[in-house]
Amino acid sequence: MKVAVLTGVPGVGKTTVTEKALENIQKDYKIVNYGDKMLEVAKKRDLVEDRDQMRKLDPKTQRDIQGQAGEEISEMAENQPVIVDTHSTINTPDGYLPGLPEWVLRPLNPELIICVEADSEEIIGRRKKDSDIREREIESKEKLEEHQFMNRSATAAYSMISGATVKIIKNHDGGLEEASEELAGALA
Amino acid sequence: MKVAVLTGVPGVGKTTVTEKALENIQKDYKIVNYGDKMLEVAKKRDLVEDRDQMRKLDPKTQRDIQGQAGEEISEMAENQPVIVDTHSTINTPDGYLPGLPEWVLRPLNPELIICVEADSEEIIGRRKKDSDIREREIESKEKLEEHQFMNRSATAAYSMISGATVKIIKNHDGGLEEASEELAGALA
Amino acid sequence: MKVAVLTGVPGVGKTTVTEKALENIQKDYKIVNYGDKMLEVAKKRDLVEDRDQMRKLDPKTQRDIQGQAGEEISEMAENQPVIVDTHSTINTPDGYLPGLPEWVLRPLNPELIICVEADSEEIIGRRKKDSDIREREIESKEKLEEHQFMNRSATAAYSMISGATVKIIKNHDGGLEEASEELAGALA
Repeated sequence: MKVAVLTGVPGVGKTTVTEKALENIQKDYKIVNYGDKMLEVAKKRDLVEDRDQMRKLDPKTQRDIQGQAGEEISEMAENQPVIVDTHSTINTPDGYLPGLPEWVLRPLNPELIICVEADSEEIIGRRKKDSDIREREIESKEKLEEHQFMNRSATAAYSMISGATVKIIKNHDGGLEEASEELAGALA
Repeated sequence: MKVAVLTGVPGVGKTTVTEKALENIQKDYKIVNYGDKMLEVAKKRDLVEDRDQMRKLDPKTQRDIQGQAGEEISEMAENQPVIVDTHSTINTPDGYLPGLPEWVLRPLNPELIICVEADSEEIIGRRKKDSDIREREIESKEKLEEHQFMNRSATAAYSMISGATVKIIKNHDGGLEEASEELAGALA
Repeated sequence: MKVAVLTGVPGVGKTTVTEKALENIQKDYKIVNYGDKMLEVAKKRDLVEDRDQMRKLDPKTQRDIQGQAGEEISEMAENQPVIVDTHSTINTPDGYLPGLPEWVLRPLNPELIICVEADSEEIIGRRKKDSDIREREIESKEKLEEHQFMNRSATAAYSMISGATVKIIKNHDGGLEEASEELAGALA
């Protein structure tokens, strides 16, 4: 069994590539959204009623919930391989927040970290077409390159602690087929 | 309360940007130079009389002093938010030395890591004008890019352990206003 | 005494640079290949008879052997300084595997991490001339840049845990003399 972590900046197409990759392999992965899992943990503890209240929790409680979400996902993987849909770093107004801080990474214990990337121009183009992406998330080319740099660097650190391999998948315009085949190889 | 870590290569203007940012916010930060704090700790223990003697301490003692300096800064922050003026990595003849090795990072426990950057040509230009910067610190463009690369990568690792957000501030020529406003946002 | 770790992608010339650097210094380093040491540990435990069987060991046993190899090298360094010939990350079909995961890094406890680099075109040129490099290891320019990026980023993380300095040595075509002198400075 296996925990794979799926990362990539908004608009890079990580979900599309992954769904296409899963069509072509035998292994039956369950895709878990890490944010959803955290919300579920917090609701079970009667700490919040909806997602908006999550941010208002004090930092210690937040870390505790994050860690427990990691543990529960790791337990799920004992029965079925899991892909955790999350972020390497999250671009917040205060800076890049680590998606897999130590207290999540250790209980989660992934074997594979997938890093879906594309050229910054390609990502900007995709974001403009996607009405789900809020206006404020339209970043400049320079900022996007910075974000992808931080994402990659962070995976190298996550890999040192977990021993996970880091698979960088280039999802270029018109290259979905190639990207999904490469990912299928790592997930199979 | 909060510990913020301030980093950037010599000549990038991190002190100028920070002082300007602090003028515009309510929060009353204390700026602590990490090297000064280490010297203070070593003097209190009667290990050294001046800064030059610090390098002659054996590695185990040095680490011990570094860790205690981190702890004392963290205690200061219980009363007043602190900005620790230090380095992400230090360019020594033997290579890049980590500014926040694990034994400093864990007791210091920062919430924010500020990484002030500029284009390497801009930094070289500023260094040439600054008589405080010694001749041997005039680095080539390539070496400066390498150093800034290592600084960023190191912050990603520091962030994994501490959970700190990493705020990258571009301090371009003529852009002090913009840089200080962006930093003020993260410090406020 | 000292443990130095020697890294660089296949074909970058790390062995050549290191051997030339050692000619010019007094210190008598022993060069240990980390993979050979692991094999030796596994054979002593009667787990394998040859290198091919190493991959078939279960992950827990592999980690155990990796850690013990790190410990034994660290013990060797009590008598003679050691250079460990290994990788920052290994490019496998499943992604970049960390060469110094935490369970190797902590017992090994290096003081210096050497990262030999060259331009990707130079490396491709050298690989084409080297019949020891298998066909499948001929990577594209883009993939090589990606690999060298991951190698550097990983060294920043390794440095945070071990406190080791990271020395980046550029081994450009026609620059062996310069590269080996710079390395000799860090090893002396």
